[in-house]
Amino acid sequence: MSWENNVRRVVPYTPGEQPKVSDIIKLNTNENPYPPAPGVQKILDDFDIARMRLYPDPNAEILVNALAETYHVKPNQIFVGVGSDDVISMAFLTFFNSEKKILFPDVTYSFYDVWADVYQIPYQTVPLTEDFRINPDDYKIPNGGIIFPNPNAPTGVLESLDLIEEILQANPDSVVMIDEAYIDFGGESCLPLLEKYENLLVIQTFSKSRSMAGMRIGFAIGSEKLIKCMNDVKFSINSYTMNHITLLCGAETLKDEAYFKSSTGKIIETREQAKKKLSELGFVFPDSKSNFIFASHPDYDAGAIFNKLKERKIFVRYWNKPRINQYLRITVGTPEEMQKLFSALEEILAEGQ
Amino acid sequence: MSWENNVRRVVPYTPGEQPKVSDIIKLNTNENPYPPAPGVQKILDDFDIARMRLYPDPNAEILVNALAETYHVKPNQIFVGVGSDDVISMAFLTFFNSEKKILFPDVTYSFYDVWADVYQIPYQTVPLTEDFRINPDDYKIPNGGIIFPNPNAPTGVLESLDLIEEILQANPDSVVMIDEAYIDFGGESCLPLLEKYENLLVIQTFSKSRSMAGMRIGFAIGSEKLIKCMNDVKFSINSYTMNHITLLCGAETLKDEAYFKSSTGKIIETREQAKKKLSELGFVFPDSKSNFIFASHPDYDAGAIFNKLKERKIFVRYWNKPRINQYLRITVGTPEEMQKLFSALEEILAEGQ
Repeated sequence: MSWENNVRRVVPYTPGEQPKVSDIIKLNTNENPYPPAPGVQKILDDFDIARMRLYPDPNAEILVNALAETYHVKPNQIFVGVGSDDVISMAFLTFFNSEKKILFPDVTYSFYDVWADVYQIPYQTVPLTEDFRINPDDYKIPNGGIIFPNPNAPTGVLESLDLIEEILQANPDSVVMIDEAYIDFGGESCLPLLEKYENLLVIQTFSKSRSMAGMRIGFAIGSEKLIKCMNDVKFSINSYTMNHITLLCGAETLKDEAYFKSSTGKIIETREQAKKKLSELGFVFPDSKSNFIFASHPDYDAGAIFNKLKERKIFVRYWNKPRINQYLRITVGTPEEMQKLFSALEEILAEGQ
Repeated sequence: MSWENNVRRVVPYTPGEQPKVSDIIKLNTNENPYPPAPGVQKILDDFDIARMRLYPDPNAEILVNALAETYHVKPNQIFVGVGSDDVISMAFLTFFNSEKKILFPDVTYSFYDVWADVYQIPYQTVPLTEDFRINPDDYKIPNGGIIFPNPNAPTGVLESLDLIEEILQANPDSVVMIDEAYIDFGGESCLPLLEKYENLLVIQTFSKSRSMAGMRIGFAIGSEKLIKCMNDVKFSINSYTMNHITLLCGAETLKDEAYFKSSTGKIIETREQAKKKLSELGFVFPDSKSNFIFASHPDYDAGAIFNKLKERKIFVRYWNKPRINQYLRITVGTPEEMQKLFSALEEILAEGQ
């Protein structure tokens, strides 16, 4: 017997590399290549450091109210957390307490199985089709809950609202979570379905489309009932998760709709150009509606390309896992960064296998 | 059957009030009355908002290294989180997985039973003695883990290192957590015991002595083994908990030892004066080595005094709970704030019951 017998044993999630050197091209963690809304500078300029001595608002009202206004819902339909990982983790802990298995795709955000393990939630992965699509019929079996991203990660594939509604209709007794981390890059959000389904939880983040990965802001929107349950669990773990500066910066960012549209618009444009260029280079990929492209080359090993890009200080993401070990997930950067990527890929492909 | 059957049902912790009006005297959540180290201003001045687009360092190295240097331990003996509540919650989840009950005092930080409930950890409270002391013999029974604050909250009572060591010696098979949120106000930290006990976890915070409640920084120091276990669980929940600005501000604060000594010294001085004054007013209280005083008046109802102070816009903390419902927990503010408190108390006592 030892204290070590009572330790929760887990295999943690491995985040994408965050190299500390600065002269790299970083296309590996789906960060936004553009800075956040310029109004954020004024928030920092005006911030009185004496305010740091006081606890932040545990209800995060300034941010919650700004989100409610932006997304046309009531403040008590919104839950905020330290990035969408905090929000989804809290949602797993709150809603997935059945003895039945929760369901999510086999190829998806690789944190879902980690959360299931840490919270000892039984789960079953549901294979995507050959072309990485969700078959809604696969989700019409008894389950303890459902989650998938839309667009999916790391594929970038967007499913329709009709498909999501079909799954909701078949699952009135489960909480269905749609992880919309990448929805702002051309997808259609399922927020309108909230009017009909009180068991739908929609999760979004400031880390991608709002250029704030470094500030850690995520949120969920759902029925008042769902959000009340999540807040009860959250207030049983940490009353004050969002620091004061973060609340102010997050709320400020939401005010600048024009900047948001412009920067996401630029990324969408660069993505569409990148699709053309990657096709010209012989890559194949499912059509992406996100800020990344999940690309494979029929004649070259993805792991080898990954390493050769890294030697050239270009970081993309690669998983040595079943079904996806011949793919690279390439974040859409600035046009200049993408040009350097394409030049490097041309060199690498010219070298041969 | 409904999705509601699978919800984790909990009774959340109730944090102290964070009133949104500004003309109040706030002595209710043990915040520091002085601003953080002045170097923090330069961190904000120099911060490039473009950095917000990138994820922060998931290993929080700049802060971890600064803490390692400050406390003369190795970086891999340090775990950082979003306030000490995040750290303790993570420690409960990591280490308290026995079927035996965990132990903590009956009068203590009122979050411990909430964490035990949310994570479904069996627990047993151990009564403090009549004068709010810990009897180490009470902790020599089979258990799944032990936690208490030193100084204790809300009493302010400090226990000796000898007492802590006696408990550690009796419990080699449990993780023993000492919550030192208030240790910098005149207590002796048990950090030196780490050399002998690999099952000791010491938790501290930037929220009190370092004037950073608003930034959310807590940390634990323990053996490399303990910290590795905590990080595995943390990285199974949220890779990036500490935002970039917070890491920089926290590390900066640790550099200014002179400011830290001066501001904690002022609070200790004000506390000692407050003890005299409260005694003169007829209050009784256990001796406090923290930044608050837990005071009771033999002739006046604590709940009534609490409400009358609130009418005068002076907020202290009151719990209507067994054993402590005749006590007020009064945070030590500035000398000016304390003077206003004493004047108000004089008025209230003069009014009679």
